[in-house]
Amino acid sequence: MSQESTWPNLAGIAYGGDYNPEQWPRETWREDVVLMRQAGVNLVSVGIFSWALLETSEGVFDFSWLDEVIDLLHENGISVDLGTPTASPPAWFFAQHPDTRFVMRDGTVMGFGARGMASHSAPAYQEASVRIATELARRYADHPAVVLWHVHNEYGTPVSEDYSPHAVRAWRLWLQERYTHLDALNAAWGTSFWGQHYTAWEHIGAPAITATPANPAQRLDYARFTDHQLRQCFIRERDAIRQYASQPITTNFMANQHDGCDLWAWAREVDVVSDDHYLWAADEEAEIGLAIAADLSRSVGGGRPWILMEHSTSGVNWQPRNIAKRPGQMRRNSLTHLGRGADGILFFQWRAGRFGAEKFHSAMIPHAGTDSRVFREVTALGGDLQRLSEVRGSRVQADVAVLWDFESFWAQGLEWRPTEDVTYAQQIRLFYERLWRDNVTVDFALPGQDLSGYRLVVAPAQYMLRLAGAANLNEYVENGGTLLVSFFSGIVDENDTVHVGGFGAPLEPALGVRVEEFLPLRENDRRQIHWADGSASGSLAWQEDLVVTTADVQAHYVDGPGEAGAAITRNAHGAGTGWYVSTRLDASGMRSLFDRVYADAGVTAGDHPEGLEVITRVGADAAYVTAVNHRDEPAALAVTGTELLTGADIAGALTVAAGGVAVIRTALPHPQGGDDPDTR
Amino acid sequence: MSQESTWPNLAGIAYGGDYNPEQWPRETWREDVVLMRQAGVNLVSVGIFSWALLETSEGVFDFSWLDEVIDLLHENGISVDLGTPTASPPAWFFAQHPDTRFVMRDGTVMGFGARGMASHSAPAYQEASVRIATELARRYADHPAVVLWHVHNEYGTPVSEDYSPHAVRAWRLWLQERYTHLDALNAAWGTSFWGQHYTAWEHIGAPAITATPANPAQRLDYARFTDHQLRQCFIRERDAIRQYASQPITTNFMANQHDGCDLWAWAREVDVVSDDHYLWAADEEAEIGLAIAADLSRSVGGGRPWILMEHSTSGVNWQPRNIAKRPGQMRRNSLTHLGRGADGILFFQWRAGRFGAEKFHSAMIPHAGTDSRVFREVTALGGDLQRLSEVRGSRVQADVAVLWDFESFWAQGLEWRPTEDVTYAQQIRLFYERLWRDNVTVDFALPGQDLSGYRLVVAPAQYMLRLAGAANLNEYVENGGTLLVSFFSGIVDENDTVHVGGFGAPLEPALGVRVEEFLPLRENDRRQIHWADGSASGSLAWQEDLVVTTADVQAHYVDGPGEAGAAITRNAHGAGTGWYVSTRLDASGMRSLFDRVYADAGVTAGDHPEGLEVITRVGADAAYVTAVNHRDEPAALAVTGTELLTGADIAGALTVAAGGVAVIRTALPHPQGGDDPDTR
Amino acid sequence: MSQESTWPNLAGIAYGGDYNPEQWPRETWREDVVLMRQAGVNLVSVGIFSWALLETSEGVFDFSWLDEVIDLLHENGISVDLGTPTASPPAWFFAQHPDTRFVMRDGTVMGFGARGMASHSAPAYQEASVRIATELARRYADHPAVVLWHVHNEYGTPVSEDYSPHAVRAWRLWLQERYTHLDALNAAWGTSFWGQHYTAWEHIGAPAITATPANPAQRLDYARFTDHQLRQCFIRERDAIRQYASQPITTNFMANQHDGCDLWAWAREVDVVSDDHYLWAADEEAEIGLAIAADLSRSVGGGRPWILMEHSTSGVNWQPRNIAKRPGQMRRNSLTHLGRGADGILFFQWRAGRFGAEKFHSAMIPHAGTDSRVFREVTALGGDLQRLSEVRGSRVQADVAVLWDFESFWAQGLEWRPTEDVTYAQQIRLFYERLWRDNVTVDFALPGQDLSGYRLVVAPAQYMLRLAGAANLNEYVENGGTLLVSFFSGIVDENDTVHVGGFGAPLEPALGVRVEEFLPLRENDRRQIHWADGSASGSLAWQEDLVVTTADVQAHYVDGPGEAGAAITRNAHGAGTGWYVSTRLDASGMRSLFDRVYADAGVTAGDHPEGLEVITRVGADAAYVTAVNHRDEPAALAVTGTELLTGADIAGALTVAAGGVAVIRTALPHPQGGDDPDTR
Repeated sequence: MSQESTWPNLAGIAYGGDYNPEQWPRETWREDVVLMRQAGVNLVSVGIFSWALLETSEGVFDFSWLDEVIDLLHENGISVDLGTPTASPPAWFFAQHPDTRFVMRDGTVMGFGARGMASHSAPAYQEASVRIATELARRYADHPAVVLWHVHNEYGTPVSEDYSPHAVRAWRLWLQERYTHLDALNAAWGTSFWGQHYTAWEHIGAPAITATPANPAQRLDYARFTDHQLRQCFIRERDAIRQYASQPITTNFMANQHDGCDLWAWAREVDVVSDDHYLWAADEEAEIGLAIAADLSRSVGGGRPWILMEHSTSGVNWQPRNIAKRPGQMRRNSLTHLGRGADGILFFQWRAGRFGAEKFHSAMIPHAGTDSRVFREVTALGGDLQRLSEVRGSRVQADVAVLWDFESFWAQGLEWRPTEDVTYAQQIRLFYERLWRDNVTVDFALPGQDLSGYRLVVAPAQYMLRLAGAANLNEYVENGGTLLVSFFSGIVDENDTVHVGGFGAPLEPALGVRVEEFLPLRENDRRQIHWADGSASGSLAWQEDLVVTTADVQAHYVDGPGEAGAAITRNAHGAGTGWYVSTRLDASGMRSLFDRVYADAGVTAGDHPEGLEVITRVGADAAYVTAVNHRDEPAALAVTGTELLTGADIAGALTVAAGGVAVIRTALPHPQGGDDPDTR
Repeated sequence: MSQESTWPNLAGIAYGGDYNPEQWPRETWREDVVLMRQAGVNLVSVGIFSWALLETSEGVFDFSWLDEVIDLLHENGISVDLGTPTASPPAWFFAQHPDTRFVMRDGTVMGFGARGMASHSAPAYQEASVRIATELARRYADHPAVVLWHVHNEYGTPVSEDYSPHAVRAWRLWLQERYTHLDALNAAWGTSFWGQHYTAWEHIGAPAITATPANPAQRLDYARFTDHQLRQCFIRERDAIRQYASQPITTNFMANQHDGCDLWAWAREVDVVSDDHYLWAADEEAEIGLAIAADLSRSVGGGRPWILMEHSTSGVNWQPRNIAKRPGQMRRNSLTHLGRGADGILFFQWRAGRFGAEKFHSAMIPHAGTDSRVFREVTALGGDLQRLSEVRGSRVQADVAVLWDFESFWAQGLEWRPTEDVTYAQQIRLFYERLWRDNVTVDFALPGQDLSGYRLVVAPAQYMLRLAGAANLNEYVENGGTLLVSFFSGIVDENDTVHVGGFGAPLEPALGVRVEEFLPLRENDRRQIHWADGSASGSLAWQEDLVVTTADVQAHYVDGPGEAGAAITRNAHGAGTGWYVSTRLDASGMRSLFDRVYADAGVTAGDHPEGLEVITRVGADAAYVTAVNHRDEPAALAVTGTELLTGADIAGALTVAAGGVAVIRTALPHPQGGDDPDTR
Repeated sequence: MSQESTWPNLAGIAYGGDYNPEQWPRETWREDVVLMRQAGVNLVSVGIFSWALLETSEGVFDFSWLDEVIDLLHENGISVDLGTPTASPPAWFFAQHPDTRFVMRDGTVMGFGARGMASHSAPAYQEASVRIATELARRYADHPAVVLWHVHNEYGTPVSEDYSPHAVRAWRLWLQERYTHLDALNAAWGTSFWGQHYTAWEHIGAPAITATPANPAQRLDYARFTDHQLRQCFIRERDAIRQYASQPITTNFMANQHDGCDLWAWAREVDVVSDDHYLWAADEEAEIGLAIAADLSRSVGGGRPWILMEHSTSGVNWQPRNIAKRPGQMRRNSLTHLGRGADGILFFQWRAGRFGAEKFHSAMIPHAGTDSRVFREVTALGGDLQRLSEVRGSRVQADVAVLWDFESFWAQGLEWRPTEDVTYAQQIRLFYERLWRDNVTVDFALPGQDLSGYRLVVAPAQYMLRLAGAANLNEYVENGGTLLVSFFSGIVDENDTVHVGGFGAPLEPALGVRVEEFLPLRENDRRQIHWADGSASGSLAWQEDLVVTTADVQAHYVDGPGEAGAAITRNAHGAGTGWYVSTRLDASGMRSLFDRVYADAGVTAGDHPEGLEVITRVGADAAYVTAVNHRDEPAALAVTGTELLTGADIAGALTVAAGGVAVIRTALPHPQGGDDPDTR
């Protein structure tokens, strides 16, 4: 974080979207600003893909049209989030520097004509991106319209791992810095396996395509290297801008959509977290994925408010079937983001482009124009957000943490895992989903961070777990915390090397079990477990052969390869409790599990109807309860206060309309943590 | 068309196939000509893959074996369709000119040893192909056996878009010719999107593989360029032959099988249209695809008779499951082609080859020899065709046109369309199929051509529609025509740019609706519409949010995202009617739709049993009704005249046997168009 | 075979596994040898992936650690199978010789960092592999621990066909040797098809990727060339070792898992056959595939005992779902291999590696350590094998041969066959499976070998059949043998050229039928046949139009394209009988077919319960019956003798426990062949 003040100089909630005036004639610009004011827009992102029009040949700049645009916006009271256009270098750049082309793992060289990512390790690209960022900052640092800087666009997409010669050179330097001695690298990578021992730095290549899986530790390091190189690109531009400009600087993340960037590390570098989010349309409950993304955006920023930099007013254009949002859905989505900590709601994009690859992406002004459902909803949302200005700056509080570790994501995603049927993303969703249905608000967290503030910590898939992280989790339980761990956790260390002692050994103190063997199920094989009370749940995808040391068995396998063995265990450890679930449970099983775990942790599930999403933000003087009704029927909420969208006073009970939303200013909750410190 | 006389100098219907004597010893040649005479063969295609045996090294020719073959055929009264062998350059050619290798979009360089297409833009290939064509013409122009020239083979297959350096160079020249100024190119391609602005012609590359979709207008132009380059290859060879030879010149199309060549443009260049057609075996009603191919072959040639240059006597060899034709099926296929305008019926190939990639392709003489079902059917067909000689030159007439625009095919086929579940080919088939089942004969047509002769024009998927085409369609309706338009029509102009006014705006005069938003359905989602009369039909894949301006709503959405909105509309416009259907209908829905549309258009569906395919050709003195019974039971046909295959006199009623065919000479129909000019 | 004595100098059955001490610290080595002795291990494979640690730079060797390992093993009475590490050259090798990189068919160059196969045709690789093999032999030839040499690892995996420039050069030389004259090559490859005629050796390339299938004869020769090049690599190393060492030399095959090596030819080069086998976990009866692999390993070695060089104690790591073995399953697998002729049972690997791509592969000591089910079973198996020492050297005898021809595998596997639904591997399995269920022991055989010792010969898919092989089969029948041939047999000769006379013509004497046409079925189409006795069976995937000449029709097609035609025929020919089955039968159909065929052949199916696998080995003084019970319930076996694992005397009947095994020493069978010579 480069300075203390980290929020754009804007009144109320930020509202707007990407604005690409270069795609339209000047008469449209004048219409745009009128319509923006009509819609309540106060912030637009400009210049994200404008490099070719700003630097027309190497070192030759033309800012005239951008001056005009920014002045026009300013005259109309609309602030600017000014982009650096470095996600898409111009045609002349690639013609002049053909060596900067991005190379895929199989050696395919990427052509020009899409979003033209260059090699993040190419010196020519690095220089050029700093040059344009510098020139933009020099020119617009003091423009009163500019309140935020937007570096690049969605780092890591559409491609991240570059295998060009420039990348290989940079990789060797990065490795020398990381390991200093080749012996350390050989040890970390386990090069005694398959005869991969290195005797010189210059013999090391990128983990390019091989006929059988490449060294997993090498690949994991390449993911780290790639993340590092991308982040250095950001830092280089950020620092160039900072030389001239004092506004906050951000770049738009893709939380829960692209896992190639370690957002914990990235969030430390930006002044304000911003995130892009798009519903996965094939998922009929895509709002759960949205909630994950919002909670992750908030969590990586340490709970600070953040900006939803892009979402869509309706359908997108890049999915197999681009489902349009139904009336009210965009409002629900927007309010969920806000309820989960966003203080800015922006869209891609202001006006639907007539040409190019994204012309079928929805926008604030669709191809059908302003006399349209979408523009009416956009305008209404602008009004809603003005009524919610006071929510700005308030914070979400959570009693539960779910572990989310990008490095473990990368490691688990490599080839030759025990079964294709288990992925990190799916495990996160499975556990989060139960908490979401129960309206238990969640932070995401790293295994090694201070977890003492949480009543419950959930590790749905912590495949890679450093010893220090494991020690932290054991200590968390010892000190009274409740820990819930799924199968395939605590397997390897930071080098994808199996822990001494076997699978899960580092967590044995907390969990009281060891895993003797993984027992993946055949495709679509569905088995059963029996709980101690005789009820049954489904066992899917995975079972295990457990050695129970100090734990109590809560459920047994009825059938499948684990037949008669322990399936779910509970371990009293110090002042706390460690739960272990060695199979994938069906929905009823997850409910049974969490009921028991909540009881241990002292967590109370919300008593609202399932599908009424309720989140609370806490401000200095009041709390704000956001209620989003995903159901097709009205839902009752017990609350007292003032509903801010309607101004209605609510005394004890509010009915949220089918598909509707409400935000209620209510009294501050009782102080946290003081009432029952001994029960945790 | 290079001259007026456009039919090979042959008596009756042309009959035969590809003949590859170079694969057989001379004793087989002598057997071949005897068997050809026995089978009624009068035309064979020779030399299509013979380059390596004719030009044994650069500029060194050996025509001796070909002289012998052609003389032998001539002595036996069999005419020759003489191929230029340029679809497969020799090994020496690629060894000498390695730069002529074809390059795929991802940079993969194609090896030698299959059908060895070279880069169509490589100067060495262009020179060599003209050289061999010239030498062939010089030598055989005056040979009395040669009645037709067959340039190359199936242009555009197996690959069409070449990404070699030669192609890129030619592409830049083609662009300069098309756009003259870079500004025009930047505007047409919408390069302000994603920062793709060009400042020099030499910065422009082919739209090679990119990590996210490349510029769609660039890709569309590359499809145009590729089509142009291939056609120039044809023209170059054609003109070389014409220097010496006066026989008609053709090349074999692949209508409804390969959509990379704009057959409307190609048909203008050939003296006679010829086409290859193979059943898609997985389709249990592959005869519908056959009918489409035949109607398209006829239509691109402006209704002129055409030659079925290749089809198969039984199964092919390149499909996942190569289903053999059942007894009688080859005869039905052949007669359908003839009924739809073909005056030549040829096969790939005369004798099944013992080696190479196509040895499991059926032939006129199968591996089992002449004592076989296939050869008996081949011989019988030869007799049939002799009995049908008088049909030659007669013409099919159609009251209905279905729009078929290759450029729209190319554009719709690019990435990132609203849903994967809608393709051009599938939409064409869906609408054509209903007309086929109703025995309503169809021409294919371009949106901008004179349509005034048709009672009904159907646009099943006119995604790309130029403003001029739209104006033509509006005018067609205004003047009394009936127009039926499906969803996803009239969306973009020739640059894949969304029309001003939104989706479908250019057709609003005729249709009286605008499309506010596309509402694709989820995979396998099946919904309902209700017609005004209360009947229901299925709504699949796609719905829309329609704004009805002047139209009447004929059916509403019962459920799905379009719930309660208009699904199908009818608009009175001038003297005509415009129908719009905004969803994919199930079979019953298509029947309901067409019943209503036929009534408006004054089109009468045939009253034959479904599956009895009936087509009429009209000659100078008589009409010829071809009846093909695809059913497993006999079918009655009301007709009076003489059945030509049996010679039987038919007075009012003919029973066509299960799986059988009939061709009846009957009286000329009443003159067209004179009886009800005001109702059209 | 380089010398007469072909078995490692070891007492009893060999037992052990791959041992990779280089992955572990020295203290683990000392623990390892103690545990090996505890487990009964007497042989370990060492050094297979140690190149980088043995030759630390070109020509610089460090054998110190290996000396230490081998001495330690020797001190503990454990013998060594010493590997040459040439399957994985060091990083320095590729850095120094970048031209040795393996190139895929599409031109992709393989990176370093997996199992780093170099181009088998690169001179630098050939030299380096001989150098390291020579140095190893020089140093360890006289070490008393070394009883076997293990060259390379699993030749042909993970990749076999190399398309590097080195391979192309070697390929041209191989072709010149094979064909001498280009005319012969042009004839063999049928280059008159598609214009592929060659006029110079240097114009010939590898059959690299093409847009449509490449010349099949060329591809088939490339498979032969690849097999030859790999085998030459083996021979080169073997001969280098033999200069110094007298121990037997082997390399580990992958029978029934990788079909790229012609194991008949390879078995002639090794002193002892060794094989790696892994269950295909998705197959719930993977023990059938195991039995095929074991019978093939025995058969290619001419019936000699062989070594199971690798199998797994539990799950592997490279399948989509790596199913763990259940208790007892590893013992059953091991005893089946032994029962089918293996005199050595080894595993990959001794100790589960903590790092690298295979860390989730099971091992003799799993990650969970020695207090584990797996290690207990490993130790128990060591005891079992000691009790079975006397079985060593005894031989399996079979009355039935199933044809297995690798060249036919390669040919049938090329593109553009009549249907994707028929593969060689699937046909082998289908026929073998019936014989397995009937406990009829099978040898695999080549069509051209002496078959006179077999009562029945089965050709489940002999697509490629040389005329000499066909003559041998006809003669076999004429002399009294029973031959059962499936559809798609006898189609092409060694050049993938269809036989003169049509499909199956070379076998017409034996079978009394010709195939007029293939009639593949549509996907999932299921039809029926009727047997002469009126019973029905399923007809799947394929039918044929048969011309029956001298055969009797045993079953007709009820429906499908072959409707009413012959489906299964039986032909009396000379003293024998030829059966032909022209469709894929369902399970009941296979039973009906084999019941009839057994009767003709005088083969008796075992009368044990299905799933009790029984195999007999015959020694000098006794026979050994191995019984493996794959059922979940006990099974009775009629046998008299001594059960060797328990020492129990068995008088007439033994009950094999559910999932259990037994090995019974019993009296020698009556002499073979003498009792009923006339009935064969």
